[in-house]
This record gives sequence, C-alpha cells and structure tokens, in this order.
Amino acid sequence: MERPRHQGMAKNTYMRWRLPLICLLWEVAMIVLFGVFVRFGPEADAHWEEEKREMNLTSDIENDFYFRYPSFQDVHVMIFVGFGFLMMFLKRYGFGAVGFNFLLAAFGIQWALLMQGWFHSFKNGKILIGVENLINADFCVGSVCIAFGAILGKTSPIQLLIMTLFQVTLFAVNEYILLNLLHVKDAGGSMTIHTFGAYFGLVVTRILYRPNLEQSKDKQGSVYHSDLFAMIGTLYLWMYWPSFNSAISEHGDAQHRAAINTYCSLAACVLTTMAFSSMLQKKGKLDMVHIQNATLAGGVAVGTSAEMMLTPYGSLIVGFICGIVSTVGYVYLTPFLESRLHIQDTCGIHNLHAMPGLIGGIVGAITAAAATEDVYGKEGFIKAFDFTGAYRSRTPSVQGGFQAAGILVSVLMALAGGTLVGAILKLPVWGDPAAENCFEDDIYWEVPEEEESDAYHMHNPDKPASP
Amino acid sequence: MERPRHQGMAKNTYMRWRLPLICLLWEVAMIVLFGVFVRFGPEADAHWEEEKREMNLTSDIENDFYFRYPSFQDVHVMIFVGFGFLMMFLKRYGFGAVGFNFLLAAFGIQWALLMQGWFHSFKNGKILIGVENLINADFCVGSVCIAFGAILGKTSPIQLLIMTLFQVTLFAVNEYILLNLLHVKDAGGSMTIHTFGAYFGLVVTRILYRPNLEQSKDKQGSVYHSDLFAMIGTLYLWMYWPSFNSAISEHGDAQHRAAINTYCSLAACVLTTMAFSSMLQKKGKLDMVHIQNATLAGGVAVGTSAEMMLTPYGSLIVGFICGIVSTVGYVYLTPFLESRLHIQDTCGIHNLHAMPGLIGGIVGAITAAAATEDVYGKEGFIKAFDFTGAYRSRTPSVQGGFQAAGILVSVLMALAGGTLVGAILKLPVWGDPAAENCFEDDIYWEVPEEEESDAYHMHNPDKPASP
Amino acid sequence: MERPRHQGMAKNTYMRWRLPLICLLWEVAMIVLFGVFVRFGPEADAHWEEEKREMNLTSDIENDFYFRYPSFQDVHVMIFVGFGFLMMFLKRYGFGAVGFNFLLAAFGIQWALLMQGWFHSFKNGKILIGVENLINADFCVGSVCIAFGAILGKTSPIQLLIMTLFQVTLFAVNEYILLNLLHVKDAGGSMTIHTFGAYFGLVVTRILYRPNLEQSKDKQGSVYHSDLFAMIGTLYLWMYWPSFNSAISEHGDAQHRAAINTYCSLAACVLTTMAFSSMLQKKGKLDMVHIQNATLAGGVAVGTSAEMMLTPYGSLIVGFICGIVSTVGYVYLTPFLESRLHIQDTCGIHNLHAMPGLIGGIVGAITAAAATEDVYGKEGFIKAFDFTGAYRSRTPSVQGGFQAAGILVSVLMALAGGTLVGAILKLPVWGDPAAENCFEDDIYWEVPEEEESDAYHMHNPDKPASP
Repeated sequence: MERPRHQGMAKNTYMRWRLPLICLLWEVAMIVLFGVFVRFGPEADAHWEEEKREMNLTSDIENDFYFRYPSFQDVHVMIFVGFGFLMMFLKRYGFGAVGFNFLLAAFGIQWALLMQGWFHSFKNGKILIGVENLINADFCVGSVCIAFGAILGKTSPIQLLIMTLFQVTLFAVNEYILLNLLHVKDAGGSMTIHTFGAYFGLVVTRILYRPNLEQSKDKQGSVYHSDLFAMIGTLYLWMYWPSFNSAISEHGDAQHRAAINTYCSLAACVLTTMAFSSMLQKKGKLDMVHIQNATLAGGVAVGTSAEMMLTPYGSLIVGFICGIVSTVGYVYLTPFLESRLHIQDTCGIHNLHAMPGLIGGIVGAITAAAATEDVYGKEGFIKAFDFTGAYRSRTPSVQGGFQAAGILVSVLMALAGGTLVGAILKLPVWGDPAAENCFEDDIYWEVPEEEESDAYHMHNPDKPASP
Repeated sequence: MERPRHQGMAKNTYMRWRLPLICLLWEVAMIVLFGVFVRFGPEADAHWEEEKREMNLTSDIENDFYFRYPSFQDVHVMIFVGFGFLMMFLKRYGFGAVGFNFLLAAFGIQWALLMQGWFHSFKNGKILIGVENLINADFCVGSVCIAFGAILGKTSPIQLLIMTLFQVTLFAVNEYILLNLLHVKDAGGSMTIHTFGAYFGLVVTRILYRPNLEQSKDKQGSVYHSDLFAMIGTLYLWMYWPSFNSAISEHGDAQHRAAINTYCSLAACVLTTMAFSSMLQKKGKLDMVHIQNATLAGGVAVGTSAEMMLTPYGSLIVGFICGIVSTVGYVYLTPFLESRLHIQDTCGIHNLHAMPGLIGGIVGAITAAAATEDVYGKEGFIKAFDFTGAYRSRTPSVQGGFQAAGILVSVLMALAGGTLVGAILKLPVWGDPAAENCFEDDIYWEVPEEEESDAYHMHNPDKPASP
Repeated sequence: MERPRHQGMAKNTYMRWRLPLICLLWEVAMIVLFGVFVRFGPEADAHWEEEKREMNLTSDIENDFYFRYPSFQDVHVMIFVGFGFLMMFLKRYGFGAVGFNFLLAAFGIQWALLMQGWFHSFKNGKILIGVENLINADFCVGSVCIAFGAILGKTSPIQLLIMTLFQVTLFAVNEYILLNLLHVKDAGGSMTIHTFGAYFGLVVTRILYRPNLEQSKDKQGSVYHSDLFAMIGTLYLWMYWPSFNSAISEHGDAQHRAAINTYCSLAACVLTTMAFSSMLQKKGKLDMVHIQNATLAGGVAVGTSAEMMLTPYGSLIVGFICGIVSTVGYVYLTPFLESRLHIQDTCGIHNLHAMPGLIGGIVGAITAAAATEDVYGKEGFIKAFDFTGAYRSRTPSVQGGFQAAGILVSVLMALAGGTLVGAILKLPVWGDPAAENCFEDDIYWEVPEEEESDAYHMHNPDKPASP
C-alpha cells in the first residue's frame, strides 16, 4: 500500500508553479462567487436607517455589530494567533506552523462565508452577511486548524489548501444537518467544530501514515524558546475561549452565561492538568506539552452546554474531568495510537479536541435532557432551546436524544470525509515532504542563513561547526 | 534563625505526590463550595427575560455583559499574558514564570469568586455571579501575581498555591473593609490590589530571605530573547491598563473618564522612564528593566483616581512623577533593600507596585477631597462617590480622610498577612529549591534536552561542549 | 553633499543628557498645554447625567464609549504591539524596534491629542476629549510608526522624537485640509495615515541616505526567532485591521460594513501574497518578509472605501491586487529604490504603505464617484458622505474628484514635510549611529552580556569564541 520511498531530496517538493496557481485560481473563484452571491446583510447595508425604523429599533447600539464584534475579534485572535502559535512548539517548524495556518485560514474563511451562507443566510438568491457570519466562518476554519494539528509538519501547503476546501464544505453540511435538521444546540461547537475537526484530522493522518517518520524524530521535539512561543498560543486560546463559546449565543443572558461557564470550566481544567502532569512523570516534573494543551480541554468540553444552565459548579466538574482525560491521553494514548493504530498525531488533537469534544457533546445532551421550565423560566426555556414553530412541542429528553444523535452524525461525517480527503491527499502530486524532511521549515520556506549555521550545525555531527 | 543549608540537590523538591494532591483536593473543595453557593446572577440566568421586564429594560444590550465584557477580556489578558510574560525576563525561568502564574491565577480566580462573593454578592444564601464578579476575581488574583513577582524563582508551586489561598482571603477582607466599611473608592485598585499585593509580597520575600542567593546570581539576569518576551507582557499591561482602571467603574461617564485618565498617565510615564533610565546609566544607555516595568507605574498610580475628575493634565502629572520614582527605585532602592533590609525582590515590585500604589492612594485621597459639586455637577457628585444612604452627608474632605485611611489599612493588612503567610511558607515541607537552583526551570519542569545542551554547556565551563 | 564619515565609534551617540532633557522638557510642555487646553468631553465628564437628559438618551449604553472602546483597544494594540513587533525582524534590533516605537508613540499620542484637538474638538477655548480622540491620536501616531519603518535602525531616539513632533503637526494639518476643507472621507486613513506617513518616511530616509550602509549589512537580516517575533506584529495588525478601518466610522451600519470589507480584503491579500512570494523565488520557497508585510496591504488599500458600499467582492478584488503589488514591490522595487534612487527603506514601507495607500485613495475616489441613492438608500447616501449643510448639493462624481485631490494633497504634504524634517534630522547634533553601528541595539541599549557573547562572537570571525 505504501508508495516506495527514495532518498528524501528526490521527492518533488518544488512549489513554484503549483502553489501560486492554486492560490490565484481559487482566489479568482472566490471573487466570482462573492460577486454573484455575497451582499451586505441589513445591519451592514447603507439602508440600515430604514431597517432600523422597520424593526422599531431606537438606537444604533441595537445593531448586531455591538453585541458580537468584541467576541468576533477574540475568536479571530484564537484562530490566527491561538492556533498559529500553539503549533509553534516544534523546534524547526515555526514558519510552517504560523504561516500555513495563516494561509489555510485566510482561504478557509472565504469559502466558509459562501458554504455557510448558502445554508444559513441565503435570501432571494443572495448571501447576506454580517458580523455573525464572520464569526461562523472563523469557527468553521477552526475545525480545519484542529485537523491541521494532526498532520502538522508532514504535508505541503497545497495539501493543506485542498484539505481546507473539502473540510469546510463538509463542515457546512454537517453543521446544517445538526443545527437545522436535528435542531441541535451547539454554540461553542463541541460537536461541529471539535469532534468533527479532530476525527477528520485523525483519519487523514492515519491514511497519510508514514512508516519512516522516525527519520525526522530529532525535529519532532521542542526547544526552550519554541515552547514559550507556543504558550502565547495557549494563553490566547485559554483567555478568549469564553468569547468563543458565547460569540453566537442569543443576545443577553445566553451570551453572559456561556462566558461564565467557560471561564469556570477552564479554571478547573488548569488544576487537574497540572496535577496529572506532575503525577504521571517519574520525577514529578511538569510537562509543557500538557500545560500547552490539556489546560484547554475544559473550553472544548463546555462548547455545547456553556449557553445552557450548566451552572458554575457543573462547569467546574466538566473542566476537572477533562484536564485529567486530556493529560492522561497525552501520556498513554498518543503513543498507543501511533504504535498500534498508526495514527501519527503531531499535536495530540485526539487529547485536546476529540475526547473533550465527545465529552462536550455528551454533557450538552445531558444538560439539555435535564432542562426544566423551573430552572429556565417559561420564556427562558423556549428561548434557550428555540422550541418554537415546528419544534414547539419538543421535550427536553427528546432534545437530549437529538443532541446525542448530533455527536454520532459529526463523528460519522468526520470519518467519511477524512477518508475521502486522506485518499485525495495521498496522491503523489501535491509535493509533500519526504520522511526525513518532515517538521522542517526549509523545504517550503526561505530560512535565514545565519540561524541555520547557528542551530543546524550543532545538531549535525557530520558538518564541523568550526573548520 | 536561618535553617541550615546543605548541598542544593539534597533539598527535596520532588513534587510528584504533593503537587497533585493539593491541586486535586483544592479543586474538589472548589466544586463543593461552588455547588453549595454559586449561582448565575440575574443577568446571566435564563430568567433574564422576566428580569428585563421587572427592571424596565427595553433591550438585551442593557445587560451588564455588554458594558463590561470587553474590559473583562482585556483584564484577563493582563493577568495571564501580561503578568505571565512580564516575569519571563529571567533567562532560565520562562516556564516557571508563565506556567506558575497560570496555575496560581487559575486557582485564585475560583477562590476569589467565593471570597468576594460572600462579601459582596451574597443573596439568600447564594453567591450570584455575573461578568463584574469575573473582573473582580481577576483583580484579586492580580494582587497575587504582584506578590509572586517578589518571590519569583525562589519558591515551589506548592508555596505559590498556599500563598494564593491566604492572599486571596485577606484581599477579600481588606477589600471589604475599604469598600464597605470605609466606603472608599478604588476602582483600579491602587490600594486594594497594588499597595496590598506589593507589601504582602515584600514581607513574604523578606521572611523567606536566602543569604546564599548569590549562588544562582548568573541565572538572575536576562538574555536578549527573554527580554523581548517580557516586552509582550509589558505592552499588554500598558495597552490594556485603561480597561483595568475602568472595568468596574459606573456605567457611562465614569468608565469613559477612567480610560482617558489612565491612557494619559501611562503616556507621560513612558517619557520620564526613558529619561531617567538614560540619565542614571553612565553611558546614557536605556535599560530594558526600566522600560519593562517603570513605564507601567503611571497605570498603578491612577488606579484610585482615574474614575474621578482627575483631568487629563492631572493624569499626566501623576504619570510624570511615577515614571521617575519607579526608575529611580530600580536603580537605587532595590539594591539597598536587598543589601540592607534583606528584601530580595526579584521583579522589583516595590518600584512598580508598592510606591506607585501608595502614590495612587494619596492622589485618590487628594482628588476626592478636592471634589466639588461645581466640577462634578450635582448628580455627578453624588454618583461619583456614591454619597447616598448612610453616606448622604459625607463631605469631600471627609471622603479624602477615609481614602487616606484606606491606604493605611491596606498596608497594615499586607504587613500582617505577609508575615503570617511568610511564616507558613518557611516551613521546610513545601519543596522549595535550594539557593543554587533558584531561577531555574528544570527543578520543576521537564526542559527540552537539546536546548539544555545548547545553552547550558556554554555557561558551564566544567562540561566540555563537544567531547 | 554627504558629511564626511570617520571611524564609527568616533560618532557621538552618547544620549545621557540629550535624551533625558528632551523627554523631560517636552513632557513638561505637554502638561502645561494639557492644563491650559484639554478637558473631558461631555460623554466623559461627570456632568454626563445632565448631558444624557439634554440629548434625550435613555441609557448609559448610548455613551460613545460603548460604541468605540473595543475598537480603540484593538487599534492601541496595533500601534504598540503591531508596529513594535513587526519591526522586530532585525536580528539585533529588537529592543530598538519595540522600545523606540513605544517612546515615539507615547509622546506622539499626547501631541496628537493637542494638534487634532485644536483642529477638531476645540470649543470655548478648550479641547474636549473622548474615546474618539484617543483613537484619532493613535491613528496619527500610526503614520509616524510607518515612517519609522523606513529609517529603522539608522537613527537615534532623539531624531525619532523630533520627527514625531513635526510629523504629528503636519499630519494634523493635512488631515484638516482633507477632512474639513476638501470634505473627503477617509475613515481608515489610506490617504491621511498610510500615503502621508509612507511618503514622509521615504523622503526622510532619502535625505538621510547613508552611502556606507553595507558596513552593517550583516545585521540587516533576520534570524529564525526574530522572524517569529515579527509574526506576532503581523498577525495583530492583520486581525485587528477591521477594527482600525471601522473605529471612527459612523455608528451602526458604517462601522459594521467597514469591518466586513476589511476582513474580506485582508483574506484575499494573503492568498496572492503567498502565490507571488513562491512564484518570484527561484526555488519556489515562501519568503517571511512577504508574509510579514504584503499580507497587510489589503487592509491599507480599503482604508478609504471600507465604510462605503465597496461590497465584499469589491474588497476581495482590492486585496487580490494589493497582495500582488506589494510582494512584487518587495522583490523588485525595494532594491531598485535603494540602488538607483538612494532610498534605503528598511522595512519596505513603500510596498506596504505607499503603494497600497495610493491604491486605497484611488479605490475610495472611484467608490465615492460610483455611489448612487439606489445603492445607499436616500438617507444612507446622505449619511455615508455627510452631504449636509454646505455640502448638501455635492454629487458623487464631485466627491470622487475631491477624494482624488485628497491623495494629491497628502503626497505633496508628505514630500514637503519629509524634506523639511529630513533636513533637520541631518544636522550632526542628534547622536545618530555610524554606518557600521546601524541596526544594532547596543549603541543605545544595555544589552544582556551573556547573549552578546553567545551571539556576537559567532558572527565575528576576528574575535575567537573561546580563548
């Protein structure tokens, strides 16, 4: 099944015409599709004054922009700095981590605006966009950034763009099934973003399995400074996660509540991560890999339920559990997945997104099933689960069942989609690096020379550092 | 008085069971206490629709979330990235700086939600929380981060957690005395956060005095890159300080005014810091230590008065003075405190928080005493100082007196509390590092190996870099 | 014309009395001028309760603070972290990049509050300030940061302060001509900030031309880590640019629209930058210089038109073009400008700000000229271009003409102002570094010693690394 491997440099990783061509063609396609379909929504359109009168709004402050823009910017930072820097932990892959994340996200948000727009904001032949669309596009791309984590260092930028194209498409389909057909709540995306993104990425990396990856093993670790850069990513994800989980919740109490629940869950998660990181190491020392990643699992795991009446202590419990699950996963599960199942998961997304995502889906289902009019108030109950129109008579336990179904659908979509995309990416025409060149910037990037001489020769005993 | 010192490695810094135990037990305690006490406040509860009607609010935008959430996120960044990265200036203590700050803050905010909740948000046996509680919890933890600066590099994570537990408790008591009993204004916390936190930390580090600290002197400096990382912390503190000082001010003009005053004070502070940094060095060169720290003193020093009618030029004057005081402190006072008073203040919090905090309290007292109905307007005057109910007849000069009393109380509480906590931390069971292992990550952290070989051997003439 | 050059160290770069003196004197001047002129605007003044009644506002949320403060903070981050870190790419000039940027911006915002205040917020002998003034001051300083990019590494802090003083002054004059006399729209400052700032800086660097700059050529490049630090700057500029372009737009739809247009333009820009970066390098590898800079050109180029009905696809087109123009500029134009026109443009601001700024002005003129009541709605049309009062009968095509005139005025003001300031900065009394000491922190900064020994000796074959 594995295609034969030659000497590394023999692989054609020359990007000069392929990468520009794909970037330019796709961007032209975006322009054409935006030209045909995308217009400003009523709150961003210059006709807003009339709209305001029609909707009986007394002030410009009622524009959705003021409800959501601060959260949007936080989410934006999470996607570009959060994910980009979190993946910078590899000693020789900083340019690739932040640069390719930048590239795929910049393309992905455009395509997501279209795909999600067709499903959710399509009126009279036009996609009408506003700040909520921008957030949703960032969310969608978030799931691609997660999948990127699994294959980090092992793919060409072209493969990443192709993966982005397909994954965004399938994300939008899955999201449509969950939100519209199953009428599931998932404001922070435990299912649609994390579960879907993680299993998608895990299948892709399984299909792209590289039996000779130990050839680049020395580059798979971190150095002191790369770990500090990665902490920038970690902290921005951690700090802004309350914005992430509340960004598209209903105005008012739901946004407020989602932020509080997420804040609590994340705080608890830090303590159990630290506890287990120390406990699982012989000398009791803390491991930066856990601190960088497992501390975030609490945010993932309240993605579905944060806007519900999970309550602060409920959030603490979820965070408590997820810090443990995620840290244990890094110590025991990741090596197992690699050696037994041939799943080479560079960033350990199985521990940070897959398991906490599943937990998040389950917690959401339980919280929904346990909802009562007493706890939510009569109006609040209807508003929280949008039990209106066709869903007027849906009961909490039925809602819980649909929520659970949502998890299943997300996993299945991810497995099917990941298989398809993995197979496509396996074609030997996309310029992926040879095994010995993985986790190495200078295949695709011009790396400053002097640094090369500083850092490279030290690790390369064949070349004398000083003649 | 000093306990005898053996060879460094003989000290038991093994964290494997102690750290996990304390983290897990305390987190379980948090869950239980949250379960018993903490609920959503009315603006985050699903009954918000009814609340809105009761309070005659016409729009969801009136939810406190929209008044304060952007400021909350800025404050959150200051606590985790600001303090965490500011303390990253040490060449071999980056993991400890950002990681332990993360740990203590994550625990501290939970405990602060409870402690402050019991004092300020307790209704019918429940603590009702909203976004303002989150901000206050972050504020409270800020004072612990400040104290952490004094003992940076010299304590174990367990000591830090214990300090956090006690300091948060005492912070809440002190805050209650100031805000509720003395009816003092201190929105940006010159007294409650900075003065209290700094003197608390200074007393702790005095009690933990290490006579042999010169053994790790070579690690007490910075390297080029660690100084750049620290500037990330500095700049985020500097940029977001207007949010810090305005985050819990009254809606409307008070928040607006607090932001402007802080912006002005900080701008002036940068210029005098640069001036004195150059002036006090023989060759006239700028010192990164000053730029990283003293530029922030202006924010500390308007913490009490920013929401008052300090006026922009008043703010400039305060910033002007504090840049000078703080820089001079770094050059002359820190060495003096260490050699004469045995106060080993790693980050120089005496210069950044203690002195500017005192100045801030005094400026606040003067500004309050000088308030007139003419300047504030009749309604504005009452609103600014909350001269209602029992305080209806308090005059500005009386208010000024109480403000001054608030400084004194904060200092006394800090000295007493710091003494108590210092004594506890001095017990030889918390796993603190030996003198020669201070300012060194690899006692408590797994440090990437290669980096070690790069960086360590260079400084260690005994081990040959290449065999 | 060139003054004679001696041995580098012979140049007097001693700052000890000159820098403190200028900082202190100027800050005192600021205090005096603020004392005479600056007061809180009505929305930040304690009389706000009365103001609210007068303006018939029902809620504190109507205070401009809540419309603009989140955007202000984003802009603030762009100025201090965005520009500061973007310029950190040089291997030995990190302190200077972030530190001098900090200094000049902190002074500049104070002077800008005064200059812009006299022109735009002057009432009854007082400048009344609010959050919009803070944003405008940051904007004004942004143009200085841009000019700083051209002379980065080649000037003393005193020269930078002098440039700031003059450039802020001229910026305010130019802005007054454009916004008030020509009644031009330029919310994101394509003309006032970018075009003006860039040509100003280019003229200054031309006048300060250093024929022997190749003496410090080895320091003009980046190292691996400095490129990663620079990406922090890039990403914060990129992510927050939607806030930049919308920060001072009209409340409601205009802010909303400006953010969306900018988001779109920037996304497209990333793809064409990547495409051309790869295409223009022989081996097809991506160049960090382009990713760090050209990806931002899309934000510059919609600075004028973002708040207009540019439409999302229009924004994509602008971004598409500017990514190309800017990248091509870095590859071909920068070397040409240096070798032929003696314009030594350290950061390549010609590619990131000058050309995209011009394009932005032109796009704005076209978009304005093409405006119709049909597209904007009757009210929206008047509101968008402020066709009220004396401008009631101005037509779109006339507006387009004035917009075009605004570009010309900005360029001319920049050329004239840059010439004047360049001539002043050329005086041999400001302590600028010798050619061989350019791009080198340790002329003006205390640089940590160990790092020096690590990094310096490696690049200096004359000094043996180990004796």
